[in-house]
Amino acid sequence: MSRIYSRVALIGLGLIAGSMALAMRRGGLVGEIVGTAKSAETREAAAARGLCDRIVATPEEAVTGADLVVLAVPVGVMGEIAEAIGPYLAPGATLTDVGSVKRSVMEAVAPHVPDGVHFVPGHPLAGTERSGPDAGFAELFDNRYCLLIDDAAEAEPLARLTRLWEGMGARVEVMDADHHDRVLAVTSHTPHLIAYTMVGVADDLSRVTDSEVIRYSAAGFRDFTRIAASDPTMWRDVFLNNRDATLEILGRFTEELFALQRAIRKGDGDHLHDYFTRTRAIRRGIIEAGQDTNAADFGRGSGKA
Amino acid sequence: MSRIYSRVALIGLGLIAGSMALAMRRGGLVGEIVGTAKSAETREAAAARGLCDRIVATPEEAVTGADLVVLAVPVGVMGEIAEAIGPYLAPGATLTDVGSVKRSVMEAVAPHVPDGVHFVPGHPLAGTERSGPDAGFAELFDNRYCLLIDDAAEAEPLARLTRLWEGMGARVEVMDADHHDRVLAVTSHTPHLIAYTMVGVADDLSRVTDSEVIRYSAAGFRDFTRIAASDPTMWRDVFLNNRDATLEILGRFTEELFALQRAIRKGDGDHLHDYFTRTRAIRRGIIEAGQDTNAADFGRGSGKA
Ligand SMILES: NC(=O)c1ccc[n+]([C@@H]2O[C@H](COP(=O)([O-])OP(=O)(O)OC[C@H]3O[C@@H](n4cnc5c(N)ncnc54)[C@H](OP(=O)(O)O)[C@@H]3O)[C@@H](O)[C@H]2O)c1
Ligand SMILES: NC(=O)c1ccc[n+]([C@@H]2O[C@H](COP(=O)([O-])OP(=O)(O)OC[C@H]3O[C@@H](n4cnc5c(N)ncnc54)[C@H](OP(=O)(O)O)[C@@H]3O)[C@@H](O)[C@H]2O)c1
Repeated sequence: MSRIYSRVALIGLGLIAGSMALAMRRGGLVGEIVGTAKSAETREAAAARGLCDRIVATPEEAVTGADLVVLAVPVGVMGEIAEAIGPYLAPGATLTDVGSVKRSVMEAVAPHVPDGVHFVPGHPLAGTERSGPDAGFAELFDNRYCLLIDDAAEAEPLARLTRLWEGMGARVEVMDADHHDRVLAVTSHTPHLIAYTMVGVADDLSRVTDSEVIRYSAAGFRDFTRIAASDPTMWRDVFLNNRDATLEILGRFTEELFALQRAIRKGDGDHLHDYFTRTRAIRRGIIEAGQDTNAADFGRGSGKA
Repeated sequence: MSRIYSRVALIGLGLIAGSMALAMRRGGLVGEIVGTAKSAETREAAAARGLCDRIVATPEEAVTGADLVVLAVPVGVMGEIAEAIGPYLAPGATLTDVGSVKRSVMEAVAPHVPDGVHFVPGHPLAGTERSGPDAGFAELFDNRYCLLIDDAAEAEPLARLTRLWEGMGARVEVMDADHHDRVLAVTSHTPHLIAYTMVGVADDLSRVTDSEVIRYSAAGFRDFTRIAASDPTMWRDVFLNNRDATLEILGRFTEELFALQRAIRKGDGDHLHDYFTRTRAIRRGIIEAGQDTNAADFGRGSGKA
């Protein structure tokens, strides 16, 4: 594949930026990759791993001369970084981000984007519970969706960024920011909040010890702890920035939970059985769509049919 | 290893019984294995797979002459099966079960256990979202815990059953029934109810379509669907039979969830960050205890470091 951008600046060198660097290299998609992160420690770890061609100390230096700039930092700091780099962005460059929330990031970033720079917000729906410069890997985006936001994007920069994501293995879909935030509140944000809550409750009981919770986790709880091991800063920012949609889905969730709770209290087995049957169809759809394997998971790192 | 029982009767031929048959064979732990299940279809599938030495049509036939009888059926039918087989149990035999709830199973089964038969309730904390005669595999219990209940059990039958479970790869712990039910409400029952609820909510939205939920599930939701794909009959019975402990933990859960919801509404980032940080220690404990791998899971059946 021919080069899609000649110089990419990665602001942030964590799981997502690191995976992008490795996936762009794998596909021979770009020329130079320049990276920066807040701490010297992260910059050194990224340099040691050879993630970028050049690592620099500040976002301003990183973006100078780049035709693609990627904001891969927690959602809550996107605005201040955009403000800092705005004056250094090259005319004709594309600015994108990978934040898990879109409306608030766009509101924070857009005012700092100079004329002649194309802002195309994005969000790859791929991740693990790991973070930092050592967490990334080239295959992260393979067969996963990447959502690009077209509220204000022009056609040519959007098409070019689409080609980059496809070159990194992703399937690209385009939607508007509000719809994105609603979809993610369901498929990601509320599930994460619930998992964090359940793990917190387990940690806080006096009659069941932590060591019991740990030993007997294979019975279902284990999957919650994986989700709840995700980065606290990233997730704090997600909830603060997708407040309305998350609270709306949480409202629906507690409503349904109360109905099931009432069924348990009353001994209404039919209600429970019907509910538990209905939810299986979604699982089949996910496997057919290639978004999970059908191998039964039992926590040993490889499935067993 | 020398034979621990000379004839084992498996009542039910699903995930757990099938895995026990394969694990007992692997270890050369028992003599003959006789099995039965409700439907001819399941009995035929189990026969085709060669799970048992003999498959018979009724529990009464299966238990005749057995020195170990295992009830591996949904929790809600254990009582009626115990009533049916009671008169056919051999003096000196051990009767056990693998039900996910213990207090109610013991109340349902114990009255039908004749004098001279030793009832030792049990629960292997191992499973997958699969069920039926084709779901079992010999490694299911390896390094997983199996809880045996000592409320009324005599020492010799308990020690013998312990050796059987250890021979199948499990680590055995002994506790009383009420404590078991409380621990499982935390590590298994409440997480399952929550996962079912979240998947049901996602299925029920008008503004986010099922096909969007399916496509974008990799962002966290996917793990919930795996849990919520578990057998509806088994789980209905679990909630109806571990009502009090489940409702107690659910109460704690909603309390915490409301506190986090309030923090989101008020924009209290510190509360969120503190909560999300605290939950990470439990994850580390689970990995150190060998109850999950540390490989990041991204739904492709094999982890990637
Ligand atoms: N993880 C996921 O599952 C996932 C999936 C899709 C999208 N996202 C989104 O992707 C973005 C990055 O997430 P990630 O998982 O890659 O996070 P991460 O591994 O924690 O990396 C974040 C990076 O941002 C840097 N950073 C933080 N504040 C900065 C600042 N003021 N100036 C410059 N660099 C700064 C950090 O540098 P230091 O290490 O020096 O602090 C670090 O390199 C977030 O917006 C997140 O919402 C995450
Ligand atoms: N799955 C787990 O994760 C897990 C883990 C630990 C413990 N457990 C417990 O283990 C037990 C069995 O679960 P499982 O996952 O093995 O279930 P499963 O795969 O659905 O198998 C249940 C078996 O019970 C049989 N059965 C049902 N009613 C019967 C009756 N009246 N008489 C004779 N056989 C009957 C079924 O026969 P048909 O197929 O003919 O209906 C089937 O063979 C349950 O008590 C469950 O709580 C499950």
